[in-house]
Amino acid sequence: MRLAIVGLGGIGASVGLACKARGLPMSIGGYDLRPEIVQQAHARGIIDTPCATLEACAEADLLLFATPPRALPDCFRQLTHCLKPDTVLTDVASVKTPILAWAQQLLPHPQRFVGGHPIAGTEQSGLPAARADLFESAPWVLTPTDQTDRDALQQVEAFVQSLGAMPIALSAEQHDREFALLSFLPHCIAFSLIALHRQQPTSLQGGRSWRDATRVAASDPALWTELLLLNREHTLDYLHALTEHLRQLAQLLQQGDADSLEAFLRSHSIQGA
Amino acid sequence: MRLAIVGLGGIGASVGLACKARGLPMSIGGYDLRPEIVQQAHARGIIDTPCATLEACAEADLLLFATPPRALPDCFRQLTHCLKPDTVLTDVASVKTPILAWAQQLLPHPQRFVGGHPIAGTEQSGLPAARADLFESAPWVLTPTDQTDRDALQQVEAFVQSLGAMPIALSAEQHDREFALLSFLPHCIAFSLIALHRQQPTSLQGGRSWRDATRVAASDPALWTELLLLNREHTLDYLHALTEHLRQLAQLLQQGDADSLEAFLRSHSIQGA
Repeated sequence: MRLAIVGLGGIGASVGLACKARGLPMSIGGYDLRPEIVQQAHARGIIDTPCATLEACAEADLLLFATPPRALPDCFRQLTHCLKPDTVLTDVASVKTPILAWAQQLLPHPQRFVGGHPIAGTEQSGLPAARADLFESAPWVLTPTDQTDRDALQQVEAFVQSLGAMPIALSAEQHDREFALLSFLPHCIAFSLIALHRQQPTSLQGGRSWRDATRVAASDPALWTELLLLNREHTLDYLHALTEHLRQLAQLLQQGDADSLEAFLRSHSIQGA
Repeated sequence: MRLAIVGLGGIGASVGLACKARGLPMSIGGYDLRPEIVQQAHARGIIDTPCATLEACAEADLLLFATPPRALPDCFRQLTHCLKPDTVLTDVASVKTPILAWAQQLLPHPQRFVGGHPIAGTEQSGLPAARADLFESAPWVLTPTDQTDRDALQQVEAFVQSLGAMPIALSAEQHDREFALLSFLPHCIAFSLIALHRQQPTSLQGGRSWRDATRVAASDPALWTELLLLNREHTLDYLHALTEHLRQLAQLLQQGDADSLEAFLRSHSIQGA
């Protein structure tokens, strides 16, 4: 089995590390736009074969794209003429609907593409953030469509399980809607809290609730610009719904009615409802 | 040195545990509205002397109030006639301005009261949440006023240092304003995110960004109702400022201008600015 990893950032390199740490019987090719990253990954034993070009990855049985989403259309176009019909392709982006559309438009065998998203990212990025245990017990969403080949899906499922992750099949639409709430909204909040803090810096450092609420404001702004734009409608829906809830809470607080305020908090507490 | 702890919840009991773990040379009395909690704390060696009444704590040299804030006015009233002039009093509540006002109004020697707030709470509460190392290297805000006796302040500073904490003097007003941003706002956000999730439950569990953003929605709704109302104006200011930032972000996203959106995220990222 030949695996090729396209994009050797935090997620791509962690896939390589996990394969090696778990002794998976496969040879791993790796490509990145930055040749020095390919060399570093090779020197660290994360990949077996440095690929000088994207096309050099096309011989793989399983091709995993771990690039920023914006790179995918060009990758797909470049590979059009060199992909074998039975190569399985997958990705790891945090949005799925637009990527499935690009695969459908641009790949010669889109039924061999299985969208994926490991729920294991952190605010860190790049090769230095890679960890062999990143996917241990992590959910890994896969978004097959009616057209997806069952054996391609099964191969990707088996592969992510072999990394220690738990595959979960979901439609791309549902994934993108749920992740707008579960991840995109916390990212928007974190950046907005930092914006507030920059306007009115505090002499005190925040405790754990502040650190936890703002941690993901250390995420890559360029990547999150892309992701937010690619999942714009769902994110806007949730931004509006959140501001509405915050407005309701402010209204209860303004009114000063302790019973109503406590009822709001109690029905929205984690142990409540 | 005789310490008395009034209120044996997570913070009060952690103070007792920390004193014992660090071998501080003091005898510790303890009182709680619930007699069974006093017995449990005594049985676990957290306190040396179970107090059957609040008045029984009045003999202490240092009286630490770790009750919900609403209990403080009655505690102060009950103690009016039995406090010695040189007893030092302090508290641990997450708001400071109203508590200083109560101390001023209700205590016979308000200059012996030093407001305090250890930045060490968690979403857990009650005696089972107590930890001997809760205050290790934690900031512990103290809010002396112009009237506060310097030796009372020095005694409280020395005491919190002996627990492993780092005393930081700040005005009550500045504390309350900064904590509205650093803690009250993340709590409001957490409850509001859970409200959204209850309206549209997800099939996926959130990853770390969701867990971190919602963790404090497990906090006690009754306590947070009190706290929000006691720090209402600052919290409202920040709720409005946050919804304004979220609205700006939504507008940039709606417009779909990647450069402006990225500039917003970059200038509000933790590494940025």
